[in-house]
Amino acid sequence: MSNPKKRVLILGGGFGGVYVAVHLQKLLTSKEMEEIEIVLVSRENYMVFQPLLPEVISGSVELNHVITPIRRMAPKACLHTREVESIDPGNRTVTLSPGLDRLPLALKYDHLVIAMGTQLDYSKIPGMREHAHPFKYLGDALYLRNQLVHVLEAAEVEPDPELRRRLLTFVVAGGGFSGVECIAEMNDFLREAIRAYHTISESDLRIVLLQRGDRILPELTESLAAFAHKLLVKRGVEIRIGASLKAVSADTAVIEDKKTGTEESICTRTTIATIPAGPHALIASLPFKQDKGRIVVDQHTEVVDSPGVWALGDCAAIPQVDGQTSPPTAQHALRQARTCAENIVASFRQQPKKIFKFTGLGKLGSLGRRSAVAEVFGIKLKGLIAWLFWRGVYVTKFPGLDGQLRLIADWILDVFLPRDITQLQLFHEEAVHREHFEAGETVFATGDFGDKVYFIVKGEATVEREGAIMAELKNGDVFGEVALISNHPRGATVRATTAVDVVVVSREAFKELLGCLPGMNETMQEIMRVRLGRTLDLLDEMHNPAVPGQDVAKM
Amino acid sequence: MSNPKKRVLILGGGFGGVYVAVHLQKLLTSKEMEEIEIVLVSRENYMVFQPLLPEVISGSVELNHVITPIRRMAPKACLHTREVESIDPGNRTVTLSPGLDRLPLALKYDHLVIAMGTQLDYSKIPGMREHAHPFKYLGDALYLRNQLVHVLEAAEVEPDPELRRRLLTFVVAGGGFSGVECIAEMNDFLREAIRAYHTISESDLRIVLLQRGDRILPELTESLAAFAHKLLVKRGVEIRIGASLKAVSADTAVIEDKKTGTEESICTRTTIATIPAGPHALIASLPFKQDKGRIVVDQHTEVVDSPGVWALGDCAAIPQVDGQTSPPTAQHALRQARTCAENIVASFRQQPKKIFKFTGLGKLGSLGRRSAVAEVFGIKLKGLIAWLFWRGVYVTKFPGLDGQLRLIADWILDVFLPRDITQLQLFHEEAVHREHFEAGETVFATGDFGDKVYFIVKGEATVEREGAIMAELKNGDVFGEVALISNHPRGATVRATTAVDVVVVSREAFKELLGCLPGMNETMQEIMRVRLGRTLDLLDEMHNPAVPGQDVAKM
Repeated sequence: MSNPKKRVLILGGGFGGVYVAVHLQKLLTSKEMEEIEIVLVSRENYMVFQPLLPEVISGSVELNHVITPIRRMAPKACLHTREVESIDPGNRTVTLSPGLDRLPLALKYDHLVIAMGTQLDYSKIPGMREHAHPFKYLGDALYLRNQLVHVLEAAEVEPDPELRRRLLTFVVAGGGFSGVECIAEMNDFLREAIRAYHTISESDLRIVLLQRGDRILPELTESLAAFAHKLLVKRGVEIRIGASLKAVSADTAVIEDKKTGTEESICTRTTIATIPAGPHALIASLPFKQDKGRIVVDQHTEVVDSPGVWALGDCAAIPQVDGQTSPPTAQHALRQARTCAENIVASFRQQPKKIFKFTGLGKLGSLGRRSAVAEVFGIKLKGLIAWLFWRGVYVTKFPGLDGQLRLIADWILDVFLPRDITQLQLFHEEAVHREHFEAGETVFATGDFGDKVYFIVKGEATVEREGAIMAELKNGDVFGEVALISNHPRGATVRATTAVDVVVVSREAFKELLGCLPGMNETMQEIMRVRLGRTLDLLDEMHNPAVPGQDVAKM
Repeated sequence: MSNPKKRVLILGGGFGGVYVAVHLQKLLTSKEMEEIEIVLVSRENYMVFQPLLPEVISGSVELNHVITPIRRMAPKACLHTREVESIDPGNRTVTLSPGLDRLPLALKYDHLVIAMGTQLDYSKIPGMREHAHPFKYLGDALYLRNQLVHVLEAAEVEPDPELRRRLLTFVVAGGGFSGVECIAEMNDFLREAIRAYHTISESDLRIVLLQRGDRILPELTESLAAFAHKLLVKRGVEIRIGASLKAVSADTAVIEDKKTGTEESICTRTTIATIPAGPHALIASLPFKQDKGRIVVDQHTEVVDSPGVWALGDCAAIPQVDGQTSPPTAQHALRQARTCAENIVASFRQQPKKIFKFTGLGKLGSLGRRSAVAEVFGIKLKGLIAWLFWRGVYVTKFPGLDGQLRLIADWILDVFLPRDITQLQLFHEEAVHREHFEAGETVFATGDFGDKVYFIVKGEATVEREGAIMAELKNGDVFGEVALISNHPRGATVRATTAVDVVVVSREAFKELLGCLPGMNETMQEIMRVRLGRTLDLLDEMHNPAVPGQDVAKM
């Protein structure tokens, strides 16, 4: 199909991208719209109202009330809910990932708007990708809420006091706005939710905030940050100034104290990392001038030396009239979107372009339970008044009257209703995934339930039985298959002697792979023959286990 | 820790199990509670209010408003959110699956209450487990809602008319209460949601209900069923009487017409099966007398010849005073729970037991959009009046004032607000999973995106290039690895020649396994050498693909 229309292709479904589409459909006349097509590419079909995301943790706002369907915000745009595979500025073409039809899609453009945000950078901290929960997307908020209920449920019936303490310890790394709002809501939720758990008291909870810098909320003036610090401490949050996350495993957060240079392990099953954001991988490969992973644009939000290519939001470095680079916040992205849309229309109409003039209205951060801090037009607000202001700002900024109504209804109901402590078990461990263990940690212990097999990618471990070392394991070794295949509890303890990265395969997946991967069954049989001194028909064992148990159906 | 208390152990978190705990905590005196412990085992920490589950599809009730935390309903019970591994009536012990501490837990009991419901039986229809969505649990309702939005999103931008038709066709198998309520809500949701999709009109939607029997809603009298039938047809549902599901694949629902004996393939990406429920696997293995997979109990809900063991709900066959077996509905389970709790208390107090006397109040089924059918105390209601009655009954039956308030708020907002068309992308395809193809179906086609490798478990397929058959594949063969490893689009078409079952491994999982599974890399290299006539360093190819694309990060 030939398309005679000119195409504005917008990449990104956050504030930046969506509001470019919203402004374009307002600015373009019906006659112009006959000749110009607005195409928006977003991974999701909704826009997340990011400032309210922390409230999803505590449940004071419903999960699907912090999001708005993009189709309703920008009905005149053509929306593709796909991922961007590649950008080719030379041929003015963007390729999208395949949808349900399994075919990738190549889209030509006349104007390209890049508003793809940033990505989490897991590479710097060992175990972070495997064991730290991010807090950036909608799914993260839901996941985190469920994780909190999950550990409460487990702690309630856990007889081992050490494991119980570990379950009831929570670590948030990053003391900026994002980390502070996240821990405030977590703290509120946990302290209210435990009323439904008889064996858990407030003093059993340990909720730790790590901040690498000298104080929390470096975005704000010192007095407001001090107010926030004091309030969080009063509400039971333990704040560790000068402490940063060094490594994470399933059972531990390793932190480093910058002043003393000492390391400390905090036993926890829940580590949340709100830092660090890295540049978008796709953007890094583009032939545009970049500054710390952000695309350098001019004051019109147009990419330097690339007419017709625009960038805005967190992925762009936009100069403000005050000489600063525009910070990565929602209020800036919103105004950049307006400037960008106006200038794209100006290009079509061959009119002069406008300059991005916004320098920020102020800063707002919620501290949970009817308190907040704010700096607006140079005025500092704190406590209840700041909180009311905070809610007022965001409910009026929320797109659409229906969304605003839903928010208000949630906030009213929240006053009367108890915390929702239901745990939606929607998240399954991937059948094939990685885990990280720090030196000295136990991978599994004698007597444990054996439902996984481990392959060492990096590092060393020992197999111990009754205190004696039976074997040493290194890169390329497999372990844990005996209990898996025979369906007995673990007969030995495996402990990491260095930091260890493993690939873990679930029992179900392992069974499928044994049955169909060429050579797999023979190789595993050979390993078992050496280890057990006898041959086993592995598949037969797995299908007809000696001990009943795992194969019984779920309740 | 020794526990001198007598223990009532309840298995199952549905209406039956939870209400036994609720009644026990009411009936037992504080003094008795010092000596008797109520322990409830549920897979989830909430109870689903099953009758409202279909409304979650359309979004007229919020997902987490059809559930209630069990801890709030039965605060005096000790709740374990685990699965049941095994039941050993000889030793009066139940073993639970491991929790976060990886150790299974064995619980002794004095009284055992089995209320574990039924399980879906996938075994009878090929492809059902792999490709039909069940509609039984809370997660199913959320999954289904997202699937509906997913296909709308895909259809909106799909140029191929055949694939578009397939995306906009929906099949529900089973014309009883469950299937009818499900398709009514789906139909309402789809017809309202498409207003946000410019290229989709009402006539593009095909929504098919399959009913094996002579009419829909066999649970009701003929006149009400006829009313429901007529209404659904008027609202755009295609009802196929005498048609049953024969096989399911990712692209097709194969149906069989009972009268004519003919088979027909309906091209669809969305098949929902509300039938058939089979006996619980764990219950089947118990040494109790059973009737069609249900445990036979006496009129006191006590298992025949097993004093101290009780069963109720869908997993039990309970004789009514009218000689019938109590049907598997919520209203019956609620009353059985009361009788069961009373009789357990009577056992402790050595008093005479009560008889289960309830025979049913009536039957209620929603037809969506302000219409329902009901038969109560012999009176037949239909249309708006039945619908108001239906809502009235369920809001008053909903546990807890807070839950009732949330429901009412949802229903009020639902009148004013448009359908929520956001698609929560929480569900990922398992890294290792099975797929089923019917004879003649295409597994993948030349040019497709190659992100999976396939291992044939059963059946035969051909590899075709430019119309010519290049190779024939059978049990134990692997295919699809070339595109996966080289990161090129598929270079050939693979078509099933018989019904084929395959194990599918995702690109990511395959890469991990190649790198760590002993012998895997060598075996695959040998296969590649034979197929391509040259050796490839597979891992090297996968990490540094010749064509950019798949490895770029997500947007």
